[in-house]
Amino acid sequence: MDPGEVRGLLERVRRGETSVDEALSSLRDLPFAELEEATVDHHRALRNGFPEVILGTGKTAAQIATIMREIDSHGQTALATRVDAESGAAVVAALPEVRYDPASRTAVLMRKPPKRIGSGPVCVVTAGTSDLPVAEEAAVTAEVLGNEVVRVRDVGVAGLHRLLRHRPTFDRSSVIVVIAGMEGALASAVGGLVSKPVIAVPTSVGYGASFGGLSALLGMLTSCASGVTVVNIDNGFGAAYAASLINLNASR
Amino acid sequence: MDPGEVRGLLERVRRGETSVDEALSSLRDLPFAELEEATVDHHRALRNGFPEVILGTGKTAAQIATIMREIDSHGQTALATRVDAESGAAVVAALPEVRYDPASRTAVLMRKPPKRIGSGPVCVVTAGTSDLPVAEEAAVTAEVLGNEVVRVRDVGVAGLHRLLRHRPTFDRSSVIVVIAGMEGALASAVGGLVSKPVIAVPTSVGYGASFGGLSALLGMLTSCASGVTVVNIDNGFGAAYAASLINLNASR
Amino acid sequence: MDPGEVRGLLERVRRGETSVDEALSSLRDLPFAELEEATVDHHRALRNGFPEVILGTGKTAAQIATIMREIDSHGQTALATRVDAESGAAVVAALPEVRYDPASRTAVLMRKPPKRIGSGPVCVVTAGTSDLPVAEEAAVTAEVLGNEVVRVRDVGVAGLHRLLRHRPTFDRSSVIVVIAGMEGALASAVGGLVSKPVIAVPTSVGYGASFGGLSALLGMLTSCASGVTVVNIDNGFGAAYAASLINLNASR
Amino acid sequence: MDPGEVRGLLERVRRGETSVDEALSSLRDLPFAELEEATVDHHRALRNGFPEVILGTGKTAAQIATIMREIDSHGQTALATRVDAESGAAVVAALPEVRYDPASRTAVLMRKPPKRIGSGPVCVVTAGTSDLPVAEEAAVTAEVLGNEVVRVRDVGVAGLHRLLRHRPTFDRSSVIVVIAGMEGALASAVGGLVSKPVIAVPTSVGYGASFGGLSALLGMLTSCASGVTVVNIDNGFGAAYAASLINLNASR
Amino acid sequence: MDPGEVRGLLERVRRGETSVDEALSSLRDLPFAELEEATVDHHRALRNGFPEVILGTGKTAAQIATIMREIDSHGQTALATRVDAESGAAVVAALPEVRYDPASRTAVLMRKPPKRIGSGPVCVVTAGTSDLPVAEEAAVTAEVLGNEVVRVRDVGVAGLHRLLRHRPTFDRSSVIVVIAGMEGALASAVGGLVSKPVIAVPTSVGYGASFGGLSALLGMLTSCASGVTVVNIDNGFGAAYAASLINLNASR
Amino acid sequence: MDPGEVRGLLERVRRGETSVDEALSSLRDLPFAELEEATVDHHRALRNGFPEVILGTGKTAAQIATIMREIDSHGQTALATRVDAESGAAVVAALPEVRYDPASRTAVLMRKPPKRIGSGPVCVVTAGTSDLPVAEEAAVTAEVLGNEVVRVRDVGVAGLHRLLRHRPTFDRSSVIVVIAGMEGALASAVGGLVSKPVIAVPTSVGYGASFGGLSALLGMLTSCASGVTVVNIDNGFGAAYAASLINLNASR
Amino acid sequence: MDPGEVRGLLERVRRGETSVDEALSSLRDLPFAELEEATVDHHRALRNGFPEVILGTGKTAAQIATIMREIDSHGQTALATRVDAESGAAVVAALPEVRYDPASRTAVLMRKPPKRIGSGPVCVVTAGTSDLPVAEEAAVTAEVLGNEVVRVRDVGVAGLHRLLRHRPTFDRSSVIVVIAGMEGALASAVGGLVSKPVIAVPTSVGYGASFGGLSALLGMLTSCASGVTVVNIDNGFGAAYAASLINLNASR
Amino acid sequence: MDPGEVRGLLERVRRGETSVDEALSSLRDLPFAELEEATVDHHRALRNGFPEVILGTGKTAAQIATIMREIDSHGQTALATRVDAESGAAVVAALPEVRYDPASRTAVLMRKPPKRIGSGPVCVVTAGTSDLPVAEEAAVTAEVLGNEVVRVRDVGVAGLHRLLRHRPTFDRSSVIVVIAGMEGALASAVGGLVSKPVIAVPTSVGYGASFGGLSALLGMLTSCASGVTVVNIDNGFGAAYAASLINLNASR
Repeated sequence: MDPGEVRGLLERVRRGETSVDEALSSLRDLPFAELEEATVDHHRALRNGFPEVILGTGKTAAQIATIMREIDSHGQTALATRVDAESGAAVVAALPEVRYDPASRTAVLMRKPPKRIGSGPVCVVTAGTSDLPVAEEAAVTAEVLGNEVVRVRDVGVAGLHRLLRHRPTFDRSSVIVVIAGMEGALASAVGGLVSKPVIAVPTSVGYGASFGGLSALLGMLTSCASGVTVVNIDNGFGAAYAASLINLNASR
Repeated sequence: MDPGEVRGLLERVRRGETSVDEALSSLRDLPFAELEEATVDHHRALRNGFPEVILGTGKTAAQIATIMREIDSHGQTALATRVDAESGAAVVAALPEVRYDPASRTAVLMRKPPKRIGSGPVCVVTAGTSDLPVAEEAAVTAEVLGNEVVRVRDVGVAGLHRLLRHRPTFDRSSVIVVIAGMEGALASAVGGLVSKPVIAVPTSVGYGASFGGLSALLGMLTSCASGVTVVNIDNGFGAAYAASLINLNASR
Repeated sequence: MDPGEVRGLLERVRRGETSVDEALSSLRDLPFAELEEATVDHHRALRNGFPEVILGTGKTAAQIATIMREIDSHGQTALATRVDAESGAAVVAALPEVRYDPASRTAVLMRKPPKRIGSGPVCVVTAGTSDLPVAEEAAVTAEVLGNEVVRVRDVGVAGLHRLLRHRPTFDRSSVIVVIAGMEGALASAVGGLVSKPVIAVPTSVGYGASFGGLSALLGMLTSCASGVTVVNIDNGFGAAYAASLINLNASR
Repeated sequence: MDPGEVRGLLERVRRGETSVDEALSSLRDLPFAELEEATVDHHRALRNGFPEVILGTGKTAAQIATIMREIDSHGQTALATRVDAESGAAVVAALPEVRYDPASRTAVLMRKPPKRIGSGPVCVVTAGTSDLPVAEEAAVTAEVLGNEVVRVRDVGVAGLHRLLRHRPTFDRSSVIVVIAGMEGALASAVGGLVSKPVIAVPTSVGYGASFGGLSALLGMLTSCASGVTVVNIDNGFGAAYAASLINLNASR
Repeated sequence: MDPGEVRGLLERVRRGETSVDEALSSLRDLPFAELEEATVDHHRALRNGFPEVILGTGKTAAQIATIMREIDSHGQTALATRVDAESGAAVVAALPEVRYDPASRTAVLMRKPPKRIGSGPVCVVTAGTSDLPVAEEAAVTAEVLGNEVVRVRDVGVAGLHRLLRHRPTFDRSSVIVVIAGMEGALASAVGGLVSKPVIAVPTSVGYGASFGGLSALLGMLTSCASGVTVVNIDNGFGAAYAASLINLNASR
Repeated sequence: MDPGEVRGLLERVRRGETSVDEALSSLRDLPFAELEEATVDHHRALRNGFPEVILGTGKTAAQIATIMREIDSHGQTALATRVDAESGAAVVAALPEVRYDPASRTAVLMRKPPKRIGSGPVCVVTAGTSDLPVAEEAAVTAEVLGNEVVRVRDVGVAGLHRLLRHRPTFDRSSVIVVIAGMEGALASAVGGLVSKPVIAVPTSVGYGASFGGLSALLGMLTSCASGVTVVNIDNGFGAAYAASLINLNASR
Repeated sequence: MDPGEVRGLLERVRRGETSVDEALSSLRDLPFAELEEATVDHHRALRNGFPEVILGTGKTAAQIATIMREIDSHGQTALATRVDAESGAAVVAALPEVRYDPASRTAVLMRKPPKRIGSGPVCVVTAGTSDLPVAEEAAVTAEVLGNEVVRVRDVGVAGLHRLLRHRPTFDRSSVIVVIAGMEGALASAVGGLVSKPVIAVPTSVGYGASFGGLSALLGMLTSCASGVTVVNIDNGFGAAYAASLINLNASR
Repeated sequence: MDPGEVRGLLERVRRGETSVDEALSSLRDLPFAELEEATVDHHRALRNGFPEVILGTGKTAAQIATIMREIDSHGQTALATRVDAESGAAVVAALPEVRYDPASRTAVLMRKPPKRIGSGPVCVVTAGTSDLPVAEEAAVTAEVLGNEVVRVRDVGVAGLHRLLRHRPTFDRSSVIVVIAGMEGALASAVGGLVSKPVIAVPTSVGYGASFGGLSALLGMLTSCASGVTVVNIDNGFGAAYAASLINLNASR
């Protein structure tokens, strides 16, 4: 209910065409209707062209396929994350248009390429090969959300030269997503090299005192490099989504 | 040593004004000087107009004043954070040009206003009055770094109406910094309302199971709203710096 | 041994019909006999009509069936929680009168409907679909204990409009059970909307810094909304039991 | 703006006494004003007669006195918690009508007794003398909110007889608030004795493996007695507020 | 009311010297009085000659003196632990018969020596000089409770020869209390040397990863030596009390 | 090398039958030979008749059988703990004299009954049925080590009457082993009832905030009942061994 | 690009043979080229003869075999750690020259014996048999890296004599690697016996309060013996690598 | 009693100058005396020239001065760590020969320079200025123990160029001690640059998620650079001692 409608209602009241009781009844739900318009997720999606995202964890392949089909029927791109290989195959069997990517554990149903956003690519930097599933979740999410993505792999602080070689790539990116387990020091090293927003993703890679990603998480939160922000352990999707919001606003 | 200086040196070599030995000597430190160019804070500061920042914790007023004077002598703005009231007074006594702000515990020595950056203001949102010192650290930092700043105060998830009233402000901001202690739920609520980068700052406000900010930190990291990133507990400066990097790149 | 019996004993002593030694012996166990009468669980059950509850975890289907049969033979309703699908089928095979509900993982043997309690329904609110097993455990428990139950699903703080729409339902409930994983912010949001007792159940849903429900637990304990109380992680049964005690006393 | 005011506005529009533009202007803030009506604390307070509560921590005596005076000027009772003795004296000096209670660290400005709520008293049970400050915070809060309060002190599980003696008191209470540090076992023992809602408050009393109340908190959360709910460590106010919501609804 | 008193009462009833009503009145509180007999600390104290113990933490010197005087007036020994030097002096000033010992932070009011218990001494073993306050709390407590005490000091696992030299002392003791901070390895080393009950007391001595005694606590709980039991961090009193119960039963 | 041997060596030196170099060489290893004699585990076993104990975890059935056979060949009783059902069957198949007990997960090879120790039975008290495997490990271990054992089952603090009924049993025991998960409050309740050494075993029974036994462990360590000592989570064997050391020394 | 090359470049500039722009372009990448040469891992390997090491965790047998073959083709020794038995067999099937060792879970492809390093052996000391896999990972790694290795097994602090017997072995070693789970006290005991570098490896062996190696880790970090350093839980490889670096430098 | 003395004793026996009984008596304490020889700190000190070290924490200035005087009287160097400025002044007042260094909080009484050890300097690397007290504790300790020490300051991973500049210094060192708080990433960066033993010291510098040094500790333990070992938080002394043991053995 927009202001114009309220004005019309008031004028009908003034003209005696609508009773006070009827008007009161119409206005009663105004606050929530107004809010609903503003905040519901699929509306936001419509506005900025972002696809609907489904967290695959704890859902059956049949449930995932059903939701993807429904999103597709509304003309939107559907992205499902955390879909294991077995579920992925079942989803593709049910919905052949779905593209399943085992490296990122994502399933995508996209009829047309996303609207390109951002003033530069999202750079996804990985410390070790074990971090790749999380990195690919971030990269594929960022791509589906409309970003150009560049991948920089296998650069850890224990081999600084490999990291330094990629500085030009960092410099031309608009956002840098750093993905690392163990001590997570890569976020500090990258953050110190560039004047770009750095989003750090701790991974659960490691053993012993890694405590399932806690060491990397704490390391990234206490990074000595200014400007590093952090998302949840293994949350490649969240980092890519945050990077996309940055790029979305930069491209307006 | 910036590229222009190297070019000048090479031209002086070409013109015979500088001997090869002298040039070699000047260039000897080039690898690191060049790197330094790229990464050292004050050089980066020169490039993007960001001031030098001093972490006041563990420094005496005399040390803070000395460093600020030195930065000032290089023509840069100096910002010191975590300066308590007593130190602040001493710094001002030593350097009358310094402006000390007790609410944010910052001391600033700024000769000319910073270059305005960003496509919109940084919005600093606070859940409770106890979070204000951290919020002001963020706000003053963001201002000194060149951002327009809007402050939204005293909006917690236990009073949703107060939060919702500020949606237009959120929508016109380029980055939103959410500062909250206790359970830190405000980050999720704000993150769900807007399509903007949200940087969450857990504060150590609270008692008991707050565990010095841990509950807010974990709550923000596991936020159900996509696109929320998190910095260290009480790190208002870090959030503002990250927001400024986003704005800096958006304004280019 | 009630006061009348003690008086009779003393009078028999006075009349010389009972020796001092015999009387002393009778009195020796008085404290514990008296206590036993007062506190034994099945007596409490008889008094308020609450069924006997069996925690299924760590029990075989045969054990569960045996206990349910025994409770049933005393004329009481039997409720078993945390019964997985396989055990549920085996219990039903052994006791066909048992109703097994896979969504809540409960098995119920109830000959007649429970006595209705409370001045209003227990409202079970869920943040996400992954929280449903815990929510259903709460809802079924509350129903078996005699409460009217209303379910409000899929309302998270990242979509405030969905939550606000249910305020009338909250207002007519006598107790609200809020079930949420991740950051558990829903408890604060609901607690801020209503003047009702809110019982929060953190769930182990989530990953990374959720630490098996710890983030939701801490978030709920440090809720900025007054009047929120918390039970153990995933303890849908406990929340429903506490809600039922509130309703039981309200209905007297 | 309550429904009656909107009706009056509409009728003034119908009668031509108010222009559509004026009405539109008044209604413009309706969504949030309406929400505000529903959720803002002082409105809720008006509805149920609950006083405004001020958390004294981090506020100066002057600030506390100012807020209390303002609340008082609206005809409401003002309760400030966590006010230390020095601040309390200063508040009383500034506002002689304030009653400061050092045992509970509360300051109260109450012109008329609260409306009595509940079907029975709130029983505040304490394990040890060191828990008394938290217990008194709970007791005074409950009294100011309109509950009858009975205090049961110094009953720990290591002396069961002292606990059992108070069973009749427990049985006639409508809610029992159990306050204990160390291992917090009292909540389980009380919860097993009664069919009443039990709200457990872990305290930070103890040393070593108490870890600032963590042991009591975990013990209460994992209580083997059904129906026990828990609030934050040392949160006597929160427990009393939750108990009052139970009593408020029971008394309607 | 002890069995003898009940017998006397019954005999007075039999002789007609006491009416049934009077007897009933006396017996009315029997259940709890009897329980009290069994469990209340000062009764238990009477039975086994153990003194009353006062935890000084959180009590004023005046309170401590008052309680000690009252205990003394019942003919019992009074022991107060965790009494700092200032309070100790004040207690002695108020009650000159009290002996205050700064090393153990104990205050004792003992008119006659305790009844000697046990088949051998309690051996209190200390790893480092910083552990001495806890060790002395244990030693003085054990002495006041009637044990012979031998002290073995400054034997850590980093100097095994010093430890081994005391094996004969360990062998003639009935219980060994091992007090150590840091990694707490001494408990394992002593436990491996002897066939005696070993009670380990972790202390909060240490820094960094000692985490206030946590490392010693965990080390003692996971000791590779069978037969080691553990009490709370810094709980010298508790270890001595447990040792005394062992000795008390051994001496019967 | 005993003193007699050293005397003989010295006399041979004096008589010139042994050179100083030879004597020096013989004496060189004296310290360790002496120590070895004194401390090796199997010697301690021989002295006090305790069997050899094998921790089954991480050992194959074949390894367990081999070690048991070897111990048996030295005329000692062999006890293996933490032997699962499958391994147990395999051990019995290999060594038919072994008695495997699935409830306690122990395997015993005992040719003659153990020498009875202690001045009274070891009482093994259990809170819930899920604690029984740990309780049986304790009970069987105590029996094999020579103690009389009484079992008290299913007494939790949520049903105090059931606990109080067993006070006479507690009073005639020499040591009480209390086994409980969840909040572990049973240790405090039992510790408050008796003047006996109480050894508490936290179990990993529970979920959520039990954190694998941590809540019970902390609760037992911070018990408000004096004289309670604690062993590692689920360490029924350790508690029984400690109880046996107490009984062993009491029986001398 | 070495200084000579830069001089040449400058001279060509001086002689006009190279334009300033060309020189500037050549100098632009100088820093990173220089760095790359200096720090790349395989260069370090070449310099000191250490083999390439592959962490087997998370890699398929095929991937491991491929990498080992590639390393072998460069004439270097390949060591893979954390290779389970199944993968090991598959690697050997693919590369018959590989030696797989199930005890240490290592696969080695070594054409010629490593260059012997160090002034003495690396001594690998183990507390219990369950620690052997970690110990063997350390021992095999140390051997492949060129150290002489001596193994000392089954020496725990609960049996000091067994430990003391090995002092001569410790004294002739150049580095001692101590591997222990549970309370990890062995590191302190060994550290106190010798004047040698001691590297402690906590293992995840244990249960309950071992918390997956945390108790051993904390115990080793807070060791009362000076000179003990610690690596990650179960990190036998890391300890051996550190020991090898010590030996490598000692042997130069 | 050293071997020479035993030989002398035996020869006196052989010559008949000492009776067998007298010799036996002298030898009676040999096992432990011999052990003492081997392990007691001051004996070890004598052998390798290391000074006695006193941990100042928890000792009065008078105690420190007394111990230093005693050590000095035996001709040894005395080093006291963790001596605050006030105590330091008092120690110097009492013992003017003592040199107190406020930066490292050490007091040293050294009559002659230590014997130089090692094949190269110990390099002490610091991330930030706040880490200097720990770094200086390490540096002064290493110097007093006989090492050459080089200090590299203010090199953090956020400014890689500053770090890389010091590679030649790292390469000529025999051991590198890396001291860093916050995320502790410096240890990984240095470890990746060199083929030297790296000992990492986490410091308690930082706030929030640093958790008193925990983040740096975990980061260093999980370092991706092989060969890094770790000591306790803030344990500069321990790192220097371990480095000295490495150098001591390398210099033999």
